[in-house]
Amino acid sequence: MAIIFELLKEDSQTGARLGRLHTPHGSIDTPVFMPVGTLATVKTMSPEELNEIGARILLSNTYHLWLRPGEDIVEEAGGLHSFMNWNGAILTDSGGFQVFSLSDMREIQEEGVHFRNHLSGEKLFLSPEKSIQIQNSLGADIIMAFDECPPYPAEYDYMKQSVERTSRWAERCLKAHRRPEDQGLFGIIQGGEYEDLRQQSARDLVSLDFPGYAVGGLSVGEPKDVMNKVLEFTTPLLPKNKPRYLMGVGSPDSLIDGAIRGIDMFDCVLPTRIARNGTCMTSTGRLVVRNAKYARDFRPLDEHCDCYVCRNYSRAYIRHLIKANEIFGMRLTTYHNLYFLVKLMEQVREAIRENRLLDFREQFFEQYGFNKPDAKNF
Amino acid sequence: MAIIFELLKEDSQTGARLGRLHTPHGSIDTPVFMPVGTLATVKTMSPEELNEIGARILLSNTYHLWLRPGEDIVEEAGGLHSFMNWNGAILTDSGGFQVFSLSDMREIQEEGVHFRNHLSGEKLFLSPEKSIQIQNSLGADIIMAFDECPPYPAEYDYMKQSVERTSRWAERCLKAHRRPEDQGLFGIIQGGEYEDLRQQSARDLVSLDFPGYAVGGLSVGEPKDVMNKVLEFTTPLLPKNKPRYLMGVGSPDSLIDGAIRGIDMFDCVLPTRIARNGTCMTSTGRLVVRNAKYARDFRPLDEHCDCYVCRNYSRAYIRHLIKANEIFGMRLTTYHNLYFLVKLMEQVREAIRENRLLDFREQFFEQYGFNKPDAKNF
Ligand SMILES: [Zn+2]
Ligand SMILES: [Zn+2]
Repeated sequence: MAIIFELLKEDSQTGARLGRLHTPHGSIDTPVFMPVGTLATVKTMSPEELNEIGARILLSNTYHLWLRPGEDIVEEAGGLHSFMNWNGAILTDSGGFQVFSLSDMREIQEEGVHFRNHLSGEKLFLSPEKSIQIQNSLGADIIMAFDECPPYPAEYDYMKQSVERTSRWAERCLKAHRRPEDQGLFGIIQGGEYEDLRQQSARDLVSLDFPGYAVGGLSVGEPKDVMNKVLEFTTPLLPKNKPRYLMGVGSPDSLIDGAIRGIDMFDCVLPTRIARNGTCMTSTGRLVVRNAKYARDFRPLDEHCDCYVCRNYSRAYIRHLIKANEIFGMRLTTYHNLYFLVKLMEQVREAIRENRLLDFREQFFEQYGFNKPDAKNF
Repeated sequence: MAIIFELLKEDSQTGARLGRLHTPHGSIDTPVFMPVGTLATVKTMSPEELNEIGARILLSNTYHLWLRPGEDIVEEAGGLHSFMNWNGAILTDSGGFQVFSLSDMREIQEEGVHFRNHLSGEKLFLSPEKSIQIQNSLGADIIMAFDECPPYPAEYDYMKQSVERTSRWAERCLKAHRRPEDQGLFGIIQGGEYEDLRQQSARDLVSLDFPGYAVGGLSVGEPKDVMNKVLEFTTPLLPKNKPRYLMGVGSPDSLIDGAIRGIDMFDCVLPTRIARNGTCMTSTGRLVVRNAKYARDFRPLDEHCDCYVCRNYSRAYIRHLIKANEIFGMRLTTYHNLYFLVKLMEQVREAIRENRLLDFREQFFEQYGFNKPDAKNF
């Protein structure tokens, strides 16, 4: 078994779990946030820096690596770990999400999906077998089943068909998987906001006995309370001894709310994407360092942060760099934001350990500004 | 005295010198190449990385910092060292070169130069006094006199007038300098390709007794043999106990040829600029890592390099990153190129120490490909 999940503790007040995920490239404390390295690089960051901030697992994108440089080149390099010089764990997605979100020329058939390359316009075809073959070549520790990720909202009838196809595809993924000994294949529960479809999807996938499960089809534009409600009726359908991964979620409030509802793993481009534009996550809320008011502010980004950036650089300097479009500015904001989320998850784990996660949530939301009437959703 | 130059050895075969430049922020072995940090950042690099590759002195641009963030903000931050978190030495140029090269709306008067901000179009005025005031605020260890840098070629009569004005401006710079105890002000010898004007300029400036001298007006488009000839008749006019700085030169061949002609300090954006486009300097010549032939080349950029990049990453990975416009790719090529030049200058110093600089030149040129008929001039 490539992936073993150790459930260390369940919170007495919530559905939150403390766990440890054992992979061929190290063990990871959960709940965990996974930085995204789309093209075999977490934008602006070195592997050493990722290690320094405490990241132990990254996500990379099958679709993007398939198009460039091509999974054959990554395989020839000795796999993704060796190619990108990252010795920690890696999870690759199935490519499904990108096919459905980046390409508008697509045709879904039982066999798979025909679509056009978003870069060149070239015709391509992705299927459960093809996705797994690519992921086997890339060689991540955790790989994902190829699913359909319908938009929000979607009609019940369409969603039901889609869930059933995703279940058939999941079975084909399992059959196509050539490296179960060193790559753990996770199934993905779909069903949108429909409780009975989530039940059907969970029943189908759990019966296939995957080493882990993702909750897919969330963070696709639905209101926050819909996401929370779906998690509330979905995670109890999943086996306790397997990790649960909520795809595409990385705002501090949703990380905490997801953990409360029994999620163990998260990923999102949010912290790195907003960083490159100069938006920082701090213990007292969002800080847009481009703003003129920081021109002569010689305090660190976050006065309560002890990261490399906050120990050495001022808002004034970082503002100057970001305004001048200097790469080092993006490095600094990215570093700080990822550090912030990694530390947040440490705090979440600590709170679960001490049975005070709801208190922690209350305090964090208050400080961050999520309780304000005009709170931005990140 | 802010700057003291220790002449350790003169080469027996050439005009090359081995020296040590003592500054308020450390001592630097010469000949030395200074990486350029235009906007208070060496593009893509952290101060720690610059230190790791062995850089001990950086150059930053007065003109650019004056426009953004403004020298007052840098001063309020505690000066450039503190602002950018660099504890090594810094040299700032006078802004003259940028005024003459970036702005086409300029008017040179005895008092100074009227021109337009290359970003906003706003009318600005720079004079010897203003340049020194800005440089005093920035607080670099070495600051430069405000000179006129005429284009190549320039008429003799124009050049003579310009040289005489530059000498008068140099005197005004000395008078305007408020921090001689911790900032060394260097004079700049002009005169283009005219030997008698270089003599006149050197005589004028040496009589003012600056702690160091730059040879200006070279690397502005003239052929390589013109640069070498000018250096040959200019450096002997300069006092032996003062450092000599050749502005804007950073190609490996010109660094060696400059050292042979008695130059101690060099700076150039070349290694960092070409790096961001994927062009690398290696011991066997220029390597354009974007090229298709490197797609499956899993060797390091330079098989004879022991830098962080060459120890950990393949040409195939770096090519992938550069092609995808990934910042980490630019970090890797920049790191390697700067390391290459810093190491090259170490080798130059070693060769001077051992009286074999001409042999080293021959061997390096042969390996790098500078002896080939179609050699590119870098
Ligand atoms: Zn920080
Ligand atoms: Zn190297």
